[in-house]
Amino acid sequence: MTRIRFHRSLDDLKEKLLVMAGLAEQAIQRAIEAYRVRDLSICDLVSRSEMAINRLEREIDQAALDLLAMEQPMAIDLRFILAVIKINADLERVGDGAKSISDRVRTMDNMAIADLPVDIPRMASLASNMVRKALQAFIEADAEMAQSVLSLDDAVDSMNRAAHVSLANVMATQCHLAPQALNALMVCRSLERVADHATNIAEDVIFWVKGADVRHKGSVDADVAGSLEAPVSRHAN
Amino acid sequence: MTRIRFHRSLDDLKEKLLVMAGLAEQAIQRAIEAYRVRDLSICDLVSRSEMAINRLEREIDQAALDLLAMEQPMAIDLRFILAVIKINADLERVGDGAKSISDRVRTMDNMAIADLPVDIPRMASLASNMVRKALQAFIEADAEMAQSVLSLDDAVDSMNRAAHVSLANVMATQCHLAPQALNALMVCRSLERVADHATNIAEDVIFWVKGADVRHKGSVDADVAGSLEAPVSRHAN
Repeated sequence: MTRIRFHRSLDDLKEKLLVMAGLAEQAIQRAIEAYRVRDLSICDLVSRSEMAINRLEREIDQAALDLLAMEQPMAIDLRFILAVIKINADLERVGDGAKSISDRVRTMDNMAIADLPVDIPRMASLASNMVRKALQAFIEADAEMAQSVLSLDDAVDSMNRAAHVSLANVMATQCHLAPQALNALMVCRSLERVADHATNIAEDVIFWVKGADVRHKGSVDADVAGSLEAPVSRHAN
Repeated sequence: MTRIRFHRSLDDLKEKLLVMAGLAEQAIQRAIEAYRVRDLSICDLVSRSEMAINRLEREIDQAALDLLAMEQPMAIDLRFILAVIKINADLERVGDGAKSISDRVRTMDNMAIADLPVDIPRMASLASNMVRKALQAFIEADAEMAQSVLSLDDAVDSMNRAAHVSLANVMATQCHLAPQALNALMVCRSLERVADHATNIAEDVIFWVKGADVRHKGSVDADVAGSLEAPVSRHAN
């Protein structure tokens, strides 16, 4: 494989991962819309997305493995491919989160509507925003933007904690609303996990981008230094 | 690096992963013991384990990356190292699960003891057993044993679903027990996730072991075939 063909393959891999990210983000948005308007037909769409996401995860994993096996890439390219493998796994779990939320919506079907002390659409939009920003950081190889995702996670965590306290309080004081409160609590927890996956993705972006600078640090082992002298690739800019 | 030194490094990597697995398994057992006897001093041990697990996760990741960068291993060795990277991430999340459970124990400290319709120690022992078996399959490169872990996951899933139904019922009918029931439900969910991680590990073992056979299949691309002719390593036996 020529260097040019190799770089085209890396671009294809990146392209596939972006499709995967789009599917995962859309799945979360659909799941929250299904929750908001209680529409089971949207839940069906989420289930179908999840299957597509699982298929694409395997495809990306295989493409990454093939590149590692055929090309034995060095330094920045190696780190890029490893980051893709990790981000891929996190996106698949974002899809799982969407599926969990839509499963909750199905169980809500026969419950009365309750006014609960929690703003799930807002929490969902924060979590989705983190996924989007982490992927943006990946596209632009921007470690600073990835860093900003890490701080957003605190906001989602504290929303989740607050929701947990207020919904547990509803359960303890208004028994008849316990099923709805429990459902809302589980949805919050799924969203908090989506935010965790966005955080993992951001950390992987930092790991990958920082790899471009690692050879400038004094701590690099002499043995490794040689393999880190590969030219910085196009996709790292 | 000579071939012998390379194999020694692979063994070191495997050894580190087994230490990681031991820590993760111990963390789950301690968290459940803390839950069972409501002992906050055990929760402190779990928190300390979690920090050790996180440190070791980074160390293993770096060692795996160094091996990939320095050795550009092929075929079975490449798949082995990738499996280590993935299993490592799952073990770290098992540690997170233990931490979540011990956080629950802390919130239980001021709650009255309640007799709940759920057997958490049994569910914990099933989930731990899955982690142990998945690691055993890894040590012995035994795809069949890994396959048996996958079927155990169904048992944990159905225990979790049953616990969810019965605990939600407690919440809806005995308001004063809602806090305890909610805590138990969250612990079940954490255990169900531990079982999911054991399942992921088992799948990674299958992926790695099956790699040893991939060249016997007709579907291998001619380009890849060369790189798959590396001798099957000692650690794959």
